Amino acid sequence: MALVVQKYGGSSLESADRIKRVAERIVATKKAGNDVVVVCSAMGDTTDELLDLAQQVNPVPPEREMDMLLTAGERISNALVAMAISALGAEAWSFTGSQAGVVTTSVHGNARIIDVTPSRVTEALEQGYVALVAGFQGVSQDTKDITTLGRGGSDTTAVALAAALNADACEIYSDVDGVYTADPRIVPDAKKLDTVPYEEMLELAASGSKILHLRSVEYARRYGVPIRVRSSYSDKPGTTVAGSIEEIPVEQALITGVAHDRSEAKITVTGVPDHAGAAARIFRTIADAEIDIDMVLQNVSNTAGRTDITFTLSKANGPKAVASLEKLKPELEFNSVLYDDQVGKVSLVGAGMRSHPGVTATFCEALAKVGVNIEIINTSEIRISVLIRDAQVDEAVRAIHDAFELGGDEEAVVYAGSGR
Amino acid sequence: MALVVQKYGGSSLESADRIKRVAERIVATKKAGNDVVVVCSAMGDTTDELLDLAQQVNPVPPEREMDMLLTAGERISNALVAMAISALGAEAWSFTGSQAGVVTTSVHGNARIIDVTPSRVTEALEQGYVALVAGFQGVSQDTKDITTLGRGGSDTTAVALAAALNADACEIYSDVDGVYTADPRIVPDAKKLDTVPYEEMLELAASGSKILHLRSVEYARRYGVPIRVRSSYSDKPGTTVAGSIEEIPVEQALITGVAHDRSEAKITVTGVPDHAGAAARIFRTIADAEIDIDMVLQNVSNTAGRTDITFTLSKANGPKAVASLEKLKPELEFNSVLYDDQVGKVSLVGAGMRSHPGVTATFCEALAKVGVNIEIINTSEIRISVLIRDAQVDEAVRAIHDAFELGGDEEAVVYAGSGR
Repeated sequence: MALVVQKYGGSSLESADRIKRVAERIVATKKAGNDVVVVCSAMGDTTDELLDLAQQVNPVPPEREMDMLLTAGERISNALVAMAISALGAEAWSFTGSQAGVVTTSVHGNARIIDVTPSRVTEALEQGYVALVAGFQGVSQDTKDITTLGRGGSDTTAVALAAALNADACEIYSDVDGVYTADPRIVPDAKKLDTVPYEEMLELAASGSKILHLRSVEYARRYGVPIRVRSSYSDKPGTTVAGSIEEIPVEQALITGVAHDRSEAKITVTGVPDHAGAAARIFRTIADAEIDIDMVLQNVSNTAGRTDITFTLSKANGPKAVASLEKLKPELEFNSVLYDDQVGKVSLVGAGMRSHPGVTATFCEALAKVGVNIEIINTSEIRISVLIRDAQVDEAVRAIHDAFELGGDEEAVVYAGSGR
Repeated sequence: MALVVQKYGGSSLESADRIKRVAERIVATKKAGNDVVVVCSAMGDTTDELLDLAQQVNPVPPEREMDMLLTAGERISNALVAMAISALGAEAWSFTGSQAGVVTTSVHGNARIIDVTPSRVTEALEQGYVALVAGFQGVSQDTKDITTLGRGGSDTTAVALAAALNADACEIYSDVDGVYTADPRIVPDAKKLDTVPYEEMLELAASGSKILHLRSVEYARRYGVPIRVRSSYSDKPGTTVAGSIEEIPVEQALITGVAHDRSEAKITVTGVPDHAGAAARIFRTIADAEIDIDMVLQNVSNTAGRTDITFTLSKANGPKAVASLEKLKPELEFNSVLYDDQVGKVSLVGAGMRSHPGVTATFCEALAKVGVNIEIINTSEIRISVLIRDAQVDEAVRAIHDAFELGGDEEAVVYAGSGR
């Protein structure tokens, strides 16, 4: 008898009908002899509807109340799934994140899990119940207020529970049937991967892949929880995210896949006087605005004794970053702040590049062949990322995918493909 | 500085716009120098929508999960009102019933409040915050599960909080501007009452008045909490429910109002063998089915040695009651079970009837004059109730209202008139 944790995303739960299908899968898993814990996100559009209501009463809603409001969504979906399970003759109890012992920091809207003490969940399992746990939420250790976990919160809840319960499996269900060598909507011959080691999945997630959130993969890696990414619309086995690249014999290491990311923008501070501390001042200003930076490039400027400093960041933070930098102008005496949101990032990921020389060369040649110009290049041990023109992203992904012969024979099956 | 508890019903909160109006009233109350605690029901149709979703996934939803589901509604409305208050420059924190220390029995769907320990509410008030508490819910003392309080639950939450906090006032807001001498939709010259003592309000509530729920009035009476019934659509002072009929000098006691109730049905068990124990058997059977009985009438039957036993009950329980009684037929050997849901109850309430002889006579004469036949009559010290034909209820209410000269000069102002 195994202990299985299953997580269902919003699109898998978007109607009473989908909820009943999900309940059938859960009950089948239970009837096969397993203990089953289920984490549900809010139904389809619920979170957006609640956000909209909030906006109508307060354009800048207080964060504590936003968490109280949004957590209603998961409460609803988990209770409904529990009811649907009951209609099929099995027993189920739903729990809030707080009731399930998910203890967090106090940062509303982006809390981190400090500890998971799922005694009520264990009790429910011991009594033969399916335990449902609301994803995306917990309770603050300090204030006892309800908190939400930010992006990828439900995936993280599922993995954290699986770790705390020493589960045998953690299955993440969405409307895609696994991790692919590239986005199947862009690359028709993208292949579904059977297995992906943690470090590669981390790089894919950080490079734009929306299948699993970075946090949940990091949590899984740290606690050794194997994750299976599956579709709630089929019985296909999906992709298993587990193991370390260290375990793969060097000769067998591969190039795994191509990710792309359209969510970033590029900022260039031009004509920065080239003295010690100027760059530091710029990056500290951005950090103080609580903005994360991704790729960085420092070029010698046209003007003597000056450099251009370029970096990428999330588009959502663009205006705030530009405003912060403009305030620096009198002090640093740079020329201008340029903002460019027509950029896209394309990344190749694979442990294989550690042992195969020429990967970077092949990569760049593939892009050059289709006329794609590289604006910034950034690498890690198992990843190459480039910043290019947004309009060329699809073409670049296909070119790289072909150059490294990642395609499979079958046409990729795409459902909604949103990875939610 | 006073401590005011305000409760807003679902129709007062049915849209973002109404929520903002409610927030304005709350902030005005705070700015006038009061500590303010607010209890909100779920927004307008939310509870019905959630019930509908539940029905779609399970026609007989488990009660524990129904409570988990429905309590999401109050969570949403209280968080939104807190956000709206914040937009107006005041500070507010929302709490679930559990967080506010509302401890209950374990009966899902109909839990009773055991205790209220509102320390987090008091803390919030001390820090200058408006405290919002989700109505209609609490946490079970034994199981730590979330419970809902059944009918009138939000009113009861408000009164219970007012009692526990020793509040100076408990204001119940709905879309009617007070307690009237009769339903203004039936009796155009019905008058708004300034004050109603607890015992009379209890009788009115038990006789069909939907303004305040019986439980909340009983709770208020027991703890001496004065309740003000007001409209959230105007600034009118409303009706105050407070004081005991014992405090009213006998000569000043009045006839207060007329209530009507269309929610009951009548069951007659005909030809019951007239021996000791037969009636007891019938009533025990109904009680075992957890059905409450209201009016009772036992008549000598046409057949010698037999009686007809008649009682009224909520229409919702009709089918279940009939089924239970049919099972008794072999044992008791009565003739038949008759079910009649075309009945209505009309009641006159007032402490004055204790000291004024002839009230019953005037009452019956008024009905006779308009051709209304009395099927069952039932009285208490301060109430006369009759069961009549459903179709004659409106006419009967008007006749009694006129006979006791309860009408006022002004035409009654009616909003939605639902008393929610």
